[in-house]
Amino acid sequence: MNLKQIIQENKLEPYFIKGSFGIEKEGLRVDKEGYLALTDHPSLFGNRNHHPYIQTDFSESQLELVTPPQDTLEQQYQWLKALHDVVNRTLPEDEFVWPFSMPNVLPKEEDIPLIKVEDSSEIKYRENLAEKYGKKKQMISGVHFNFSFDPVLLEKLSEHLQEYSELDEWCNDLYLKMSRNYLRYQWILTYLFGASPVSHPSLLDSESIGMVRSIRNSTYGYHNTFTDNVSYESIGRYIDDIERLVKNNTLYEEREYYGSSRLRGKGKYVCQLINNGARYVEFRSFDVNPFDPLGFSYEQSLFVHIYLLTMVWMDEDNSDEDIKLGIEMNAQTSLEKPFETSRYHEEGLSLLIMMKKTCSELNLPDEYADAIDEAIHILHHPEETLAAKIVTRLKEKSSFIDLGIEIGLDYKQNSLEKPFLLNGFETMEMSSQLLLYDALQMGIKTTVLDANDQFLAFNYNGKKEYVRNGNMTSKDTYISHWIMANKTVTKKVLRENDFSVPAGEEFSSFTEAKNHYELAAKQSIVVKPKSTNYGIGISIFKQLPSKRAYEDALTIAFKEDDGILVEEYIEGTEYRFFVLDEKVEAVLLREPANITGDGKHTIRELIALKNKHPYRGENHRAPLEKIKTGEIEALMLNEQDYTFDSIIENNKKVYLRENSNISTGGDSIDVTDDIHESYKRIAEEIAKALNVKVTGLDLIIPDITLASTKENQGYTVIEANFNPAMNMHAFVQKGKGRRLSKKVLEMLYPDIELS
Amino acid sequence: MNLKQIIQENKLEPYFIKGSFGIEKEGLRVDKEGYLALTDHPSLFGNRNHHPYIQTDFSESQLELVTPPQDTLEQQYQWLKALHDVVNRTLPEDEFVWPFSMPNVLPKEEDIPLIKVEDSSEIKYRENLAEKYGKKKQMISGVHFNFSFDPVLLEKLSEHLQEYSELDEWCNDLYLKMSRNYLRYQWILTYLFGASPVSHPSLLDSESIGMVRSIRNSTYGYHNTFTDNVSYESIGRYIDDIERLVKNNTLYEEREYYGSSRLRGKGKYVCQLINNGARYVEFRSFDVNPFDPLGFSYEQSLFVHIYLLTMVWMDEDNSDEDIKLGIEMNAQTSLEKPFETSRYHEEGLSLLIMMKKTCSELNLPDEYADAIDEAIHILHHPEETLAAKIVTRLKEKSSFIDLGIEIGLDYKQNSLEKPFLLNGFETMEMSSQLLLYDALQMGIKTTVLDANDQFLAFNYNGKKEYVRNGNMTSKDTYISHWIMANKTVTKKVLRENDFSVPAGEEFSSFTEAKNHYELAAKQSIVVKPKSTNYGIGISIFKQLPSKRAYEDALTIAFKEDDGILVEEYIEGTEYRFFVLDEKVEAVLLREPANITGDGKHTIRELIALKNKHPYRGENHRAPLEKIKTGEIEALMLNEQDYTFDSIIENNKKVYLRENSNISTGGDSIDVTDDIHESYKRIAEEIAKALNVKVTGLDLIIPDITLASTKENQGYTVIEANFNPAMNMHAFVQKGKGRRLSKKVLEMLYPDIELS
Repeated sequence: MNLKQIIQENKLEPYFIKGSFGIEKEGLRVDKEGYLALTDHPSLFGNRNHHPYIQTDFSESQLELVTPPQDTLEQQYQWLKALHDVVNRTLPEDEFVWPFSMPNVLPKEEDIPLIKVEDSSEIKYRENLAEKYGKKKQMISGVHFNFSFDPVLLEKLSEHLQEYSELDEWCNDLYLKMSRNYLRYQWILTYLFGASPVSHPSLLDSESIGMVRSIRNSTYGYHNTFTDNVSYESIGRYIDDIERLVKNNTLYEEREYYGSSRLRGKGKYVCQLINNGARYVEFRSFDVNPFDPLGFSYEQSLFVHIYLLTMVWMDEDNSDEDIKLGIEMNAQTSLEKPFETSRYHEEGLSLLIMMKKTCSELNLPDEYADAIDEAIHILHHPEETLAAKIVTRLKEKSSFIDLGIEIGLDYKQNSLEKPFLLNGFETMEMSSQLLLYDALQMGIKTTVLDANDQFLAFNYNGKKEYVRNGNMTSKDTYISHWIMANKTVTKKVLRENDFSVPAGEEFSSFTEAKNHYELAAKQSIVVKPKSTNYGIGISIFKQLPSKRAYEDALTIAFKEDDGILVEEYIEGTEYRFFVLDEKVEAVLLREPANITGDGKHTIRELIALKNKHPYRGENHRAPLEKIKTGEIEALMLNEQDYTFDSIIENNKKVYLRENSNISTGGDSIDVTDDIHESYKRIAEEIAKALNVKVTGLDLIIPDITLASTKENQGYTVIEANFNPAMNMHAFVQKGKGRRLSKKVLEMLYPDIELS
Repeated sequence: MNLKQIIQENKLEPYFIKGSFGIEKEGLRVDKEGYLALTDHPSLFGNRNHHPYIQTDFSESQLELVTPPQDTLEQQYQWLKALHDVVNRTLPEDEFVWPFSMPNVLPKEEDIPLIKVEDSSEIKYRENLAEKYGKKKQMISGVHFNFSFDPVLLEKLSEHLQEYSELDEWCNDLYLKMSRNYLRYQWILTYLFGASPVSHPSLLDSESIGMVRSIRNSTYGYHNTFTDNVSYESIGRYIDDIERLVKNNTLYEEREYYGSSRLRGKGKYVCQLINNGARYVEFRSFDVNPFDPLGFSYEQSLFVHIYLLTMVWMDEDNSDEDIKLGIEMNAQTSLEKPFETSRYHEEGLSLLIMMKKTCSELNLPDEYADAIDEAIHILHHPEETLAAKIVTRLKEKSSFIDLGIEIGLDYKQNSLEKPFLLNGFETMEMSSQLLLYDALQMGIKTTVLDANDQFLAFNYNGKKEYVRNGNMTSKDTYISHWIMANKTVTKKVLRENDFSVPAGEEFSSFTEAKNHYELAAKQSIVVKPKSTNYGIGISIFKQLPSKRAYEDALTIAFKEDDGILVEEYIEGTEYRFFVLDEKVEAVLLREPANITGDGKHTIRELIALKNKHPYRGENHRAPLEKIKTGEIEALMLNEQDYTFDSIIENNKKVYLRENSNISTGGDSIDVTDDIHESYKRIAEEIAKALNVKVTGLDLIIPDITLASTKENQGYTVIEANFNPAMNMHAFVQKGKGRRLSKKVLEMLYPDIELS
């Protein structure tokens, strides 16, 4: 088949450049001295038997991060970033992920812990590997790049491939061609991305070898020495060869076959490729890139993608003999000195130029051509290969171990800095990021259905759940949302259930409301639209408003809704109760923006100081907002006879805002353990009356230490929120943070195995 | 106590004028010849033991409509209107409600059917009444007006009433004062609103009496002759007197006491008034007003309200002796000739002037003063009393019976004209009106929580349910709404469940979508925003769009959402499947606006003719919209070489629109029974996959008579609607209407007793 011709004739290029991408990345857990961590795999990751993303490989100390297949490289990277965040934040304080393929300081062979799983066949397999290759060699880590074409392409192509009777058959042929050419030219990947120039003596005394491009890809690495015995000429021969190696005990199991390209099908056995066809191909050449926090850069991914496409796009097709040559060339390249020009420079240049041509023929975005240009540059400048750059860094540092500790801890620190964000998904709302983080940590299969719409799908043990905005789930009814969305209705339902709500009137026209001034306007009132959130359209009068002021407030409220409420204003402090599954999980006090004097600094300085807190950010990208120094704050200070330049006496608190919203710089204070239990019971009863599993209730309570009784109700409910911000409770200015997102997942999956 | 003074000093007028209002209205079911209907109470009203609104009184043929207490007179009227609509449309084709207090042609005493209920004590009570008063007299119907003050007023007043230890105690005193003065001056009500000047001889030969104001209020009416024996001086004496009448067998039960004013408390017995206080007062003087379709006009209600307020507001307070006088004066007034000036003209005038003064002191809306002015006018013009107006009408008609038939049938016809509207609630969406109608008919306790927001609350046997928009219920989950609201997510979920959905691409930026022109733009495509309804922002290309046209379509779609879909356009006809509780209840075909030629009329004339159908209206106030004769229609005709003045050959169908929306004049055709069952099963499975109880699914099906199979899927799902218009299925242009609202109620209340 001439695939290129078929694609061009039928304008299938847009489908050809699509695909599904996945990365598997190994990495050792080490302690701060660079020794292998001998602790167990963190129990927070739940049961390994189920975890789709965070696994262990050969050793208990060898993490393996697996991204689910994604439609774009960008998405693949988002996932890889997120998984790294989860791992970095979950590891014990004194452990981090080793940033090199070549291991850190390894203990004695017998002290390296095997993977701790229940499955005895798994254990047996690893024991066999340990015996055959030595445990230490198994600790060399790498990156696998998984790729498959878009199914629509395969379907469309099949219409033009008359010589094949089955879709699966030619699919195998397609991926075999890709593999053959990949293996023939893989040396270029090792030249560019080889990143294991050196080993710590506890694994291998590499002094005799000297600095090289990739120990891992070399004969010193972790390889089957017989890979050239497997044919890629046809699927039949590929299968036969692997099965033969198992039969004659060269391999313990099929999966022990470590070819740089492996066809992966539906089942466990290669023979199934015949009936079901290859689903994707796994490319295993890659060392861990220490210069990228993820061990593999986005630019590397772009390069590998266009490399793979070129392997199919090129007219040339290589034989098993050529593959043998390619494997040999790769072995040679891996042992080249990092600062040497490649011995295959000319072939490399032709290949890269062919890849650039492919880019333009396929009309790929510029970033692909850029990645190739960079490779051409590096081909001319071996000192810019990853291997050479590592060697350069090693010259600055006292040792390989010191360098690994420096880089690894730096990556971990970066992840820890903003614990409220999940890198890769940082454009989503904070509550959704928290939920996503927890799901990834707990090992719940997750799909981001629509990031803009905060829409996630989960699957654990086959049970599907959908969640929007972090807290909208199948556990809540449609109508309870609408009850909470309409303040009039909320109030009617709560009053009917004998809860204390503010007295007041409801109006559905300006004239009606205006004519009821006498009735509605009292000593202190709140005028609010019946269905908006975030305090929009609300006016508060702490003393009887004039008729004019009352009417202005009506106008403001009616701008937001066709119905409004005029309610008595309730004195007291407002608390936010987060109720989940009929239990109060968090109670929060929000205090208006403030600073506390120290007798030395000006208010402006104290604000700047307070704003340095890592939880404070801007535009809802952090749990707390920075305090502003705008007109409203200036006015508020002025009323207290201060300016931003005033110096405030020690321990005196000065408020910069009247309202307690977090969005205007307010403080969040967790009071869950300080509030009288009676209020929690009330909040739980309110949630039950509203028939809602997740809600944020705002209660005014004059004194949270006094019990509320039937006779003396110590509270007034003023709002029930259907979309309460969970993040507000997770990261607080003062008190204990409450990880509510995790509780949401536990509600959805009460049977989930956590460790 | 000087109530007026306390109210004025504390500015409590706004509370004093509030209240709770209810009406009970009796009416006989009669046939079209004016004979008493001897049929059973309609079974569609469900079980009478539970029905809160539509009851029977003494006789099986005597309907009693009861409005639930309402906060305003307007609302009371909305309810009364709605209940009349329900009754008028539920009665058999040949029955209607008799519009007079005085009965139609009654059968022989023994043939009048007693109420048919299971409760034997109820039967016994009626049998006793029949024996004591005669069955025929029991058939005289009336209107009761129920009133209570706002509880906030009572609470606020109590703070200023030091002489009373209990709230209930002074409450009783308040309602007793109202009753005493009411009874003293009730003659004015009979003068103005007496509407039983004549009786059919089958009940009473009134020829000897001649025409009067109110037979019902006279000694010939249905009265206890001993009402003057009950004292209203104190609650103790009131209770004692009624209990004494029962003890000495003058009354069979306490409820047999027919005083024009009755205090109603919490329990069944008057003695409970001591501990619990009066909840409301029932005023029973009112004849059915034949000139109002509801038997009592809104203006009458206004008058009665201000009359009641004045009875409390006035300094004067009457004794039992005065009450006796009042009863006597009322009896005299009722037997006055309708065209005579009242013998108490002067007293009436002073009273009405006092009422007007009360109006202005209480700052009541002008409509109250207007109602009094009208009464003053009628006091001067006895020919404008209801009684006189009836007599005038009788002079035009051959008989009392003929007049009753004419008026009653007219009222019934008005109710039948627009069966898709529920009078009183006609500002609500049609689906909510249908649901409300069904609930009232079935006897489910209903509260309109928020008419603007289409929010209803139901209660049947203590089980509460809330419904918004007619179909959003507690049976659906919050998240399923959001799944349907987001077309991208809907599609992902459906595809994952192997349903046939259009192939296509999803984009979240204009640039991304623009760059994918090659990929996305195919032979025929639809460009649509991911989350809007009603076809807004959608562009359809039936052939490959130019790059320019494609980009224009993107711009239009991105105006509606931050995400869009570019999908293949599916050929075939679109059907709407209404799935409820996992069962397809209706399938609708919508045809673009069209007319069918007759070889005689112009297109314009045929449109006008088609638009006359009662189902066609404007602005979503009818199940179908009128076909317009605008630019788009003209253009569409022009493309077919027609103008609005073309005459079309017989039976030729001409389309005036491309799109099939009902909102642009399309036809609705029910095909529920014509479509192959396989599609219904598919729609049911789709609803299950979306985990949704109520949804409207849009499927494209090329041929509804061919089965859809796994191998040959005969459909494509293009949309799942979370707010499907139920009314569209209820009233169709062609085929069988499907009453889905009733099914919604049956889903919420599977145990409901329907007859």
